[in-house]
Amino acid sequence: MSFNTYGHMFRVTTWGESHGIALGATVDGCPPGVPLTEGDIQPWLDKRKPGQNKYTTQRQEADQVRILSGVYEGSTTGTPIQLMIENTDQRSKDYGDIVQSFRPGHADISYHQKYGVRDPRGGGRSSARETAARVAAGGVARAALAQLVPGLSVTGYMVQMGPHCIDRARFDWDQIDENPFWVPDVVAARDWAVYLDDLRRAHNSVGAVIEVVARGMVPGLGAPIYAKLDADLAAAMMSINAVKGVEIGEGMAAASLTGVENADEIRMGAQGPAFLTNHAGGILGGISTGQDVVVRFSVKPTSSILTPRQTVTVAGDEVDLITKGRHDPCVGIRAVPVGEAMMACVLLDHVLMDRGQTGGIRGHIG
Amino acid sequence: MSFNTYGHMFRVTTWGESHGIALGATVDGCPPGVPLTEGDIQPWLDKRKPGQNKYTTQRQEADQVRILSGVYEGSTTGTPIQLMIENTDQRSKDYGDIVQSFRPGHADISYHQKYGVRDPRGGGRSSARETAARVAAGGVARAALAQLVPGLSVTGYMVQMGPHCIDRARFDWDQIDENPFWVPDVVAARDWAVYLDDLRRAHNSVGAVIEVVARGMVPGLGAPIYAKLDADLAAAMMSINAVKGVEIGEGMAAASLTGVENADEIRMGAQGPAFLTNHAGGILGGISTGQDVVVRFSVKPTSSILTPRQTVTVAGDEVDLITKGRHDPCVGIRAVPVGEAMMACVLLDHVLMDRGQTGGIRGHIG
Amino acid sequence: MSFNTYGHMFRVTTWGESHGIALGATVDGCPPGVPLTEGDIQPWLDKRKPGQNKYTTQRQEADQVRILSGVYEGSTTGTPIQLMIENTDQRSKDYGDIVQSFRPGHADISYHQKYGVRDPRGGGRSSARETAARVAAGGVARAALAQLVPGLSVTGYMVQMGPHCIDRARFDWDQIDENPFWVPDVVAARDWAVYLDDLRRAHNSVGAVIEVVARGMVPGLGAPIYAKLDADLAAAMMSINAVKGVEIGEGMAAASLTGVENADEIRMGAQGPAFLTNHAGGILGGISTGQDVVVRFSVKPTSSILTPRQTVTVAGDEVDLITKGRHDPCVGIRAVPVGEAMMACVLLDHVLMDRGQTGGIRGHIG
Amino acid sequence: MSFNTYGHMFRVTTWGESHGIALGATVDGCPPGVPLTEGDIQPWLDKRKPGQNKYTTQRQEADQVRILSGVYEGSTTGTPIQLMIENTDQRSKDYGDIVQSFRPGHADISYHQKYGVRDPRGGGRSSARETAARVAAGGVARAALAQLVPGLSVTGYMVQMGPHCIDRARFDWDQIDENPFWVPDVVAARDWAVYLDDLRRAHNSVGAVIEVVARGMVPGLGAPIYAKLDADLAAAMMSINAVKGVEIGEGMAAASLTGVENADEIRMGAQGPAFLTNHAGGILGGISTGQDVVVRFSVKPTSSILTPRQTVTVAGDEVDLITKGRHDPCVGIRAVPVGEAMMACVLLDHVLMDRGQTGGIRGHIG
Repeated sequence: MSFNTYGHMFRVTTWGESHGIALGATVDGCPPGVPLTEGDIQPWLDKRKPGQNKYTTQRQEADQVRILSGVYEGSTTGTPIQLMIENTDQRSKDYGDIVQSFRPGHADISYHQKYGVRDPRGGGRSSARETAARVAAGGVARAALAQLVPGLSVTGYMVQMGPHCIDRARFDWDQIDENPFWVPDVVAARDWAVYLDDLRRAHNSVGAVIEVVARGMVPGLGAPIYAKLDADLAAAMMSINAVKGVEIGEGMAAASLTGVENADEIRMGAQGPAFLTNHAGGILGGISTGQDVVVRFSVKPTSSILTPRQTVTVAGDEVDLITKGRHDPCVGIRAVPVGEAMMACVLLDHVLMDRGQTGGIRGHIG
Repeated sequence: MSFNTYGHMFRVTTWGESHGIALGATVDGCPPGVPLTEGDIQPWLDKRKPGQNKYTTQRQEADQVRILSGVYEGSTTGTPIQLMIENTDQRSKDYGDIVQSFRPGHADISYHQKYGVRDPRGGGRSSARETAARVAAGGVARAALAQLVPGLSVTGYMVQMGPHCIDRARFDWDQIDENPFWVPDVVAARDWAVYLDDLRRAHNSVGAVIEVVARGMVPGLGAPIYAKLDADLAAAMMSINAVKGVEIGEGMAAASLTGVENADEIRMGAQGPAFLTNHAGGILGGISTGQDVVVRFSVKPTSSILTPRQTVTVAGDEVDLITKGRHDPCVGIRAVPVGEAMMACVLLDHVLMDRGQTGGIRGHIG
Repeated sequence: MSFNTYGHMFRVTTWGESHGIALGATVDGCPPGVPLTEGDIQPWLDKRKPGQNKYTTQRQEADQVRILSGVYEGSTTGTPIQLMIENTDQRSKDYGDIVQSFRPGHADISYHQKYGVRDPRGGGRSSARETAARVAAGGVARAALAQLVPGLSVTGYMVQMGPHCIDRARFDWDQIDENPFWVPDVVAARDWAVYLDDLRRAHNSVGAVIEVVARGMVPGLGAPIYAKLDADLAAAMMSINAVKGVEIGEGMAAASLTGVENADEIRMGAQGPAFLTNHAGGILGGISTGQDVVVRFSVKPTSSILTPRQTVTVAGDEVDLITKGRHDPCVGIRAVPVGEAMMACVLLDHVLMDRGQTGGIRGHIG
Repeated sequence: MSFNTYGHMFRVTTWGESHGIALGATVDGCPPGVPLTEGDIQPWLDKRKPGQNKYTTQRQEADQVRILSGVYEGSTTGTPIQLMIENTDQRSKDYGDIVQSFRPGHADISYHQKYGVRDPRGGGRSSARETAARVAAGGVARAALAQLVPGLSVTGYMVQMGPHCIDRARFDWDQIDENPFWVPDVVAARDWAVYLDDLRRAHNSVGAVIEVVARGMVPGLGAPIYAKLDADLAAAMMSINAVKGVEIGEGMAAASLTGVENADEIRMGAQGPAFLTNHAGGILGGISTGQDVVVRFSVKPTSSILTPRQTVTVAGDEVDLITKGRHDPCVGIRAVPVGEAMMACVLLDHVLMDRGQTGGIRGHIG
């Protein structure tokens, strides 16, 4: 029971605070023989990196990852992989105001209630900065999956920002990397830019919904009853900062369907059973069927805003608080690569639960 | 890593198949000194018991629980509590049709894909019958919580059936036990009865949304980063049969809110900080704040219906399948006590993570 | 973190008290497709069963095991296997004397100190009777190993009773089942019978050393650094009642050896590397080498004796205690099948860690 | 299930190879509010540091520890503590000879058999250098124990080197720090120096026995049945490189005792029950009684010696191998602080299992 660790066999322990010396991930359980360099991990960190456009915090972090262990001559050895990211831009004075006050909607108060002490610099451990470590670990998971399950891909994108949803009829995979919102809808990309500009000027923020899809799946992943693939995905996504809801396939909308509508009928295809629909999101009874795994999660609006909100101080005084500093008007944007990383880690974890810790590798002599 | 076990310190392992000799729960980690008899558990099983009205399966099960260990002279000793429920009504001939075919939308196919073998009698381990064991364990959790956190209550109810939602303006706690749907809205109770009758006659089924609320909470429950209270609740609810979505507080709707709207402002009350709203559902940064914890989950429609659906057989033949047998037209109804049980187990688990395995109990000599 | 569960992927949770209604083991993680009936488990329970000769407690227990779940048509399904043994002979009046007093050298006092309450009937959960559940689980492990690692065998025997050791020159595998002490030395078997008779008449008891050997091993089992095969075996054996020491290969004697003596030199044999000696006991760096795995453990003398010993009561009064009842003069005898069971469970656990939860099984359609 | 992590609630994950960039420990579960600086950890690393005298490897390592996270203003916050030690002296050319050959008695061959690949530089992950990370984590555990259990002390010392045992009649706590062997016997210290000099000149090495004692214990630590305090200690010690046996109290010698001799009789003392002897080593039924906890473990002789030994190569060729490089003639010497660290970590782990993750700390507002 390690509270800063996730996974059953692919075990990732993240560490570090927003404004500490460094943060990172201790990645345990990666199979041996996986080609791995910093170059395989950095692109995913760059995707999440702050300050890349006006829609994310202007904090400047290189987010350069270093592999300190577990790799020998460009290949994993099966031993723990230590991934370290040093913090460079730590303007903690920005946070002076909130050392004694609790931001409404933020973990400030609950951390204080639980631990009696907290690192207020940038939210310390409760900062979204912790997700950089997850993205780094996700890079390792992607490298291992490429070896163990060729053809498997994990892609995330935004499907809703505030009240605005994408038009599925315009869904275009190629658009995802073409706009700052990772949205697969060229019209939405344009409209949301205007909407978010206005919000930011109004000293406000907004929520979002991210969808992550795994294509090229294998059947049989998931361990009933309490390590079901969907249950593990739900925990993984809900553990991301600011997430308030998780859906698999039809998600909450499944409540509105009838059994006749919801049944994913099956015919025989060239490679065996072929489903005619995917209301289930690729998971039945907690086990993957080989269909695409489809997960969605909602991200609440950033609680750190420039509009004054009523709160109290550690001393119990009532105050109105404005949160200065460099905050994302829509933290959901940077949650996209984080959701992808969690999906990759959960899938690798279940592949290893099925194949064993070394993924079937063995050494021979003579 | 036990796949049929949930919880960190309050560890529940469920066992048994739908049509096996018996099923039950091995409850490990209950503190010593908790008054406990079968009478404390049976009422919750009776609440879930099938065949109580025309809206649930007509299978007749006494669902009588027996405590085989862990209790001495009416009080727990801190050792494992074995809860056994014998199966009495096992008309497995009802299931003859589906031994070779896979019900669309059911775990039949994924279990076959994973294990290469399955117990087809009533769905074996993948049957919703497994949830009887969860409800029994929940009864133990409730008894322990009553000792450790007096005043804490856990209540579940249905808020949506198919397209029909309750009217929050008519919300009435006292109505919940007065209708077969556990719905807190007297009008909805009446309307849904008609709606469900029609569906059943049409050989169809429907989904639902259940809400579970914990009142009288204590702050500080939840262990960041990867045993957050909301992440554990999400996994617990998503692990329930047929669940496709989980929400905390605003849930998916948080995406539509702005930071100004979503901030749960704080003033000082008689017992310390008082929140003016509860968009967060009682959890910030994965830790309880003392507000009510509010969780919702969707349940898909029963996949076993009398309307023919296209599917394939183990041999790969394409067939149209009608599922005979005794199935719930809205399995969401019986998911209400299951959701309550999971909430109770997760809360006790986190109380013990905070207070230690014996809940602070110690023996003295002399 | 389940305190009554052992194993990583082959997870066994034992439950039940010495004089409760029943006791048993919830066996989670057994691969599917393993032929299994009560008949595969009962012989090992019979080997441990009390009252078989004058050297073990005269308590009469049928120790009949029942499989309540996880098996369908004579074969495991991969779901939890519930093994139940009902208690029949519970003369708890025998234990009346010690309800208020603490037996010197027994867990009575520590259970009271920890839990503030204990089930005094036959020692409750701390009784050696709990090991019946381990032996039953070991029977399942043996059945699964027979499928996954043909040719692997696990055999235990006694090598020391009190001050008397076996003569390795007389070691005879065939003698083990020919005497009540499971000793592979015909002369020792005869001498120890006389020695133990005298001890019993003197109202005394004595300790023993058991050795368990796994032959037909595969290399590569064990997970550095903290699930090393030897570390898991040490925990498994030390968790057996009354065990005070565990050795692998040379064990404590390794301290007396020089590096030149201790090096197990290697030559190439027909099936690859062949070791010329086995000081290591088949494990290097926590990983099996393919040599026989050799484990020894010491069992302290039964603390329940008819000779008065000084102790105190719950109230703090000083008393002299004589423990009536039916106790083993050398509990080490019945520890032999228990040590075998723990070895079998640990080996299967590590095989599954390497091969995955289903042992590589997969189902096909069409 | 994380194979490079130990502990239930105080979770330590060690990472890093002998000749990698760095190694360290990710310490998860340390309670908040514990005063902690590098200065609290460094002295224990210095105690273990190589090259301090002619009896240990001449490798020169500063072994300077850095705290990268989890501490704010000199006090722990309850978040993960990352401890990093950079490697400075990595003469891996020393190891050129053994890249293709397997040292007899070393993990070279088993790592190759399991992973099919290994980092040969200094033994990579299987090197005793990994224990530096344990000692650093032990420093954190000692700091936390000082807060939670004032008066508790953990002390290790050598009681046997090769065939030579200490004379218990000469036992002197003050001698332990006065000689390079951490031996509490002034005569042994002098004699062993001569003995070890001769061995080293003879290109040989030797084993040892280390004893670790915890004084000022509290009763009630340990979680039956499978997280017994003695079982956890056995696994912890057996997981240390080169350890082949573990004993609690009388250990293997318990086999020779009778029940009359072994009973630790009890009288009432000023602070409650007082035991007249401690054959049990402070643990009954897996739970601490409050007596001193006494653990011993044997360490085999270093396998890397300058005397040629027969072995094979990866290609299967038979060769005679001499291991050059800088190796400890008695690695048991440096195992003393490692054993202390493991004891401290296990004890803190069990204190937290009893008291909860924050050790009972809570924050207040107003």
